[in-house]
Amino acid sequence: MTAPWNELATAHRANQRACINKDWLLSPELLAQIAGTGQSDEGDLIARRAVDKSGLLTDKEIEITERYSVRGLLEEMATGMMSAFEVTQAFCKRAALAQQLTSCLTEIFFDTGLQRAKELDAYFSKHKKTKGPLHGLPISLKESFQVEGQFGTLGFVKGIAAGPASSNSDVVRLLLDAGAVLYCKTNIPQTMMTADSENNIFGRTLNPHKTTLTAGGSSGGEGALVAFRGSILGVGTDIAGSIRIPSLCCGIYGFKPSINRIPYGGQAPFPYPMLRVPGGIAPAAGPLAHSVEDLELFMRTVIGTENLNASRYDPQSLPLVWRDLETVGEKKQLTIGLLAEDPEYPLQPPVRRAFQEAALRLTHAGHRLVVLPHNATSSGAGLGGRLSFQYYAILPPGPDVKPLDEILGEPLVASVAKGVHPFTGGFPVNPALDLPQRLHELTEARDAYTAAWHGIWQAHALDVVLAPGAATTAVPHDSYGVPVYTCMWNLIDYPAGIIPFGKSSRELDPQPQKAVGPFEPHYDPDACEGAPCAVQVVAPRLQDEECLRAMRIIDKVLNDPSSFTPPIPPQ
Amino acid sequence: MTAPWNELATAHRANQRACINKDWLLSPELLAQIAGTGQSDEGDLIARRAVDKSGLLTDKEIEITERYSVRGLLEEMATGMMSAFEVTQAFCKRAALAQQLTSCLTEIFFDTGLQRAKELDAYFSKHKKTKGPLHGLPISLKESFQVEGQFGTLGFVKGIAAGPASSNSDVVRLLLDAGAVLYCKTNIPQTMMTADSENNIFGRTLNPHKTTLTAGGSSGGEGALVAFRGSILGVGTDIAGSIRIPSLCCGIYGFKPSINRIPYGGQAPFPYPMLRVPGGIAPAAGPLAHSVEDLELFMRTVIGTENLNASRYDPQSLPLVWRDLETVGEKKQLTIGLLAEDPEYPLQPPVRRAFQEAALRLTHAGHRLVVLPHNATSSGAGLGGRLSFQYYAILPPGPDVKPLDEILGEPLVASVAKGVHPFTGGFPVNPALDLPQRLHELTEARDAYTAAWHGIWQAHALDVVLAPGAATTAVPHDSYGVPVYTCMWNLIDYPAGIIPFGKSSRELDPQPQKAVGPFEPHYDPDACEGAPCAVQVVAPRLQDEECLRAMRIIDKVLNDPSSFTPPIPPQ
Repeated sequence: MTAPWNELATAHRANQRACINKDWLLSPELLAQIAGTGQSDEGDLIARRAVDKSGLLTDKEIEITERYSVRGLLEEMATGMMSAFEVTQAFCKRAALAQQLTSCLTEIFFDTGLQRAKELDAYFSKHKKTKGPLHGLPISLKESFQVEGQFGTLGFVKGIAAGPASSNSDVVRLLLDAGAVLYCKTNIPQTMMTADSENNIFGRTLNPHKTTLTAGGSSGGEGALVAFRGSILGVGTDIAGSIRIPSLCCGIYGFKPSINRIPYGGQAPFPYPMLRVPGGIAPAAGPLAHSVEDLELFMRTVIGTENLNASRYDPQSLPLVWRDLETVGEKKQLTIGLLAEDPEYPLQPPVRRAFQEAALRLTHAGHRLVVLPHNATSSGAGLGGRLSFQYYAILPPGPDVKPLDEILGEPLVASVAKGVHPFTGGFPVNPALDLPQRLHELTEARDAYTAAWHGIWQAHALDVVLAPGAATTAVPHDSYGVPVYTCMWNLIDYPAGIIPFGKSSRELDPQPQKAVGPFEPHYDPDACEGAPCAVQVVAPRLQDEECLRAMRIIDKVLNDPSSFTPPIPPQ
Repeated sequence: MTAPWNELATAHRANQRACINKDWLLSPELLAQIAGTGQSDEGDLIARRAVDKSGLLTDKEIEITERYSVRGLLEEMATGMMSAFEVTQAFCKRAALAQQLTSCLTEIFFDTGLQRAKELDAYFSKHKKTKGPLHGLPISLKESFQVEGQFGTLGFVKGIAAGPASSNSDVVRLLLDAGAVLYCKTNIPQTMMTADSENNIFGRTLNPHKTTLTAGGSSGGEGALVAFRGSILGVGTDIAGSIRIPSLCCGIYGFKPSINRIPYGGQAPFPYPMLRVPGGIAPAAGPLAHSVEDLELFMRTVIGTENLNASRYDPQSLPLVWRDLETVGEKKQLTIGLLAEDPEYPLQPPVRRAFQEAALRLTHAGHRLVVLPHNATSSGAGLGGRLSFQYYAILPPGPDVKPLDEILGEPLVASVAKGVHPFTGGFPVNPALDLPQRLHELTEARDAYTAAWHGIWQAHALDVVLAPGAATTAVPHDSYGVPVYTCMWNLIDYPAGIIPFGKSSRELDPQPQKAVGPFEPHYDPDACEGAPCAVQVVAPRLQDEECLRAMRIIDKVLNDPSSFTPPIPPQ
């Protein structure tokens, strides 16, 4: 590198800050005040309405960013009731505030977004029609997506030298074709393989529900930005839970589709060789948003219901249309399997309470619930986690290379330095085997795990499985455990989404609880007080449509939404 | 093994012969006579109507086996005009004759099939309805599918010791659920990785169009049996061309679907460890038949148009329905890309002539033809072949093991002993790399090849590509070249089918031609005289429906079929 890592990082961060309109930068005193420094609700940026206290947004801008669904905003713009410019500006201002309070952004290109919004307005004004189904909608992107003219460092200092991207990721091309406005990219963990979105360039993303807690990862910046309503719709990626963990940590909705339904092609490059051994676990791109309806709108628009939109640019994307299930009739009663808690990864009390309450409400609502037994050796969450982590172990710079910090030329952040969960219970496949034999045995083990879940679905004629999204809520920084409850579904490529439901409460769950494993966080009722809870809904591979339909039905039962999306996820 | 390999093989073969009704066994003299030994058309079992000369089948049985489409037979049985028993018996007798003339069968279980047919007739008689959409239809299976109670040796002497299978392959379960009758399994090459279906148990399958030529492989027994009309519908598998090569060699229709559209689960086991490194090239199960309509009927029945039939038993099968394209309107004009001949694998004159004639007729019929340029370094057939063979090299008993004949305890047959084409032009990826790194580079290379073909399709808005199925027709035994024109499509998982079209002719192509490469056969006009020619139709991944629709349209132009399927593939 041309200069010490910290000089390069500092300079890049200064450039980043310079991309925010000066009028939108708040003084340190004002920031401390609106964050509630010293107050009893310090750091609870959402419940204490930090956005109002900032005075940065007009009432109209607050209304735009809080009171609309995606569809609602699109309708306003498609009927000329709102301009793309005013919508984009509202989200830019709110994103600027979110950034100052939570460090959720990486690349900031508000002026590019505002310029595009102006062009879209001119087009609309001239042609009396929209540019496409997402005309004027501001969409935020996880750092790993490439946007022409913007950096894609992945938070690695080495990535700065590569300069701005010369082309767009494939999903970015589709979003632009559809008329969307892009205005920022969002923060991630160094290596993208932890649940703490911290790196040496862009710092650490804080949870807007409680800044002492993690926002999750790896799409953590996206989680924080969407939760703060600095974005109405964000795009993340998920290979172990990277969409679902930030969603459940930040109290928003998130959906990990089946692999290659949303184009993943054209991601920013890693600064070290990644061994590509396909057929194991692959990442999936997907949305984070404020409602199931918004998640669905993203899926159907990007994938397309008639033409094979998803595979237009990305040769790896599945050439499948989005099936509109409404046309075959609304499903009334669901058969829902309840995932068994794995005693090795026990749910913390608030998570267990939310999960049980959800099951109870769904039963009362007339759905058929099937309690699935725990089977540690065929279908258990822990087994799925162990197998997944054996696959992940193949990905990073192969064996026999230098330590990661030497490769990177910068220190490791805390959550990466901590290393991988040791899985003291042992791995399903002998990790000492040479790679070809290990891959072979992993394949056999994964097939058996897939067959077990396939059998469970068939035996009970399940529509979906209801599961916890994690053993915990958002936890204090750098203490997130091993995400077995999310990565088990990556292992078998089952689509899965997060529905926020309830909150951690020291009143309802007052007893601290010691963690079982050495890498799992303890339950601290005070530390987690007010952290969002959530449930996870899972469907078989490629039944993304069925998964979102079930999420819509379940969400109605759990969150009883009114006709607009509430600004704060329901309690 | 308990006895010398040849004793075990001989005993198994004797048992196999004992499974044929004695009345259906012809004397050596009669067999020589109907094969035309010493005649000018010796071994041309189809054109010289060996079936008539045998006197084995009644007129009605000849009619049943020759004059019906699959749909036609199903209708006869569903309306009670024919019994399942008489249909099954007709095909059993004709299969018995095919076996005596071409050694196309492995396991023979005519009595099990006839017993089931009787039960189906009783069911129909009692309930006045069929058991399912394939009620009473005899279907033949490649040796690699498991049928409960039948051996699945894969042609390996070691496989005899394993005894009969205790369960059915997943596709077999679906066929039985649908009411089909199973009556035999069909021959394959030792290792299933050559185009000569010969092994030490079941001998060598001969081409019924000319017994001095190969029937192709690895589903060669299926090719010969279907061509002889000892089966109306067979199921094969294809990882390099194993459905398409026997189809083009034997002058029948064959379809290699996208991977995992037809369940592949539950195949017979190999007697040596196969390294499973998924994500590279995987085999696909698919049909061999007498018309595009029959191929389509198989696909839509096994996959299902409403429920997710394909994934009912096999966890790896794609949970996709079969899309009935008729409902969205018949496509009138096709845009057809013409695959460029790879100068390194030049087409033999009869193949080139058939290919050019097909293109001409399609142009005259009003379709839009796009001549695709040859690009050796991005999309060429040879490049696809080289890459595919680098993947295949990973599959068989891993490195550092004993020679194959020692592992098997039996000698290698000629086509296996010959070894793999040396690809004198070199491999795209350094074969000396260790396996993980090699896999990584293969993945990158395959992605680039996929992207190249994706780009070609997009650039020209192609519906399908029309290609030769091979550089040659069926060739003399043990001289088949490297199948680059088929395996290039396995590499990128594009569905592809074979349409028979024309014949090799010493009149039209009188000049012998030297092969370019050391592994390729020379063109010998006399040796190949009368061998069927064919074209291949290819569509993008998962567009199996579009591929078969285009095949139907193209077949009409090329073969001008009348309302029934002709007994002999058109000239």
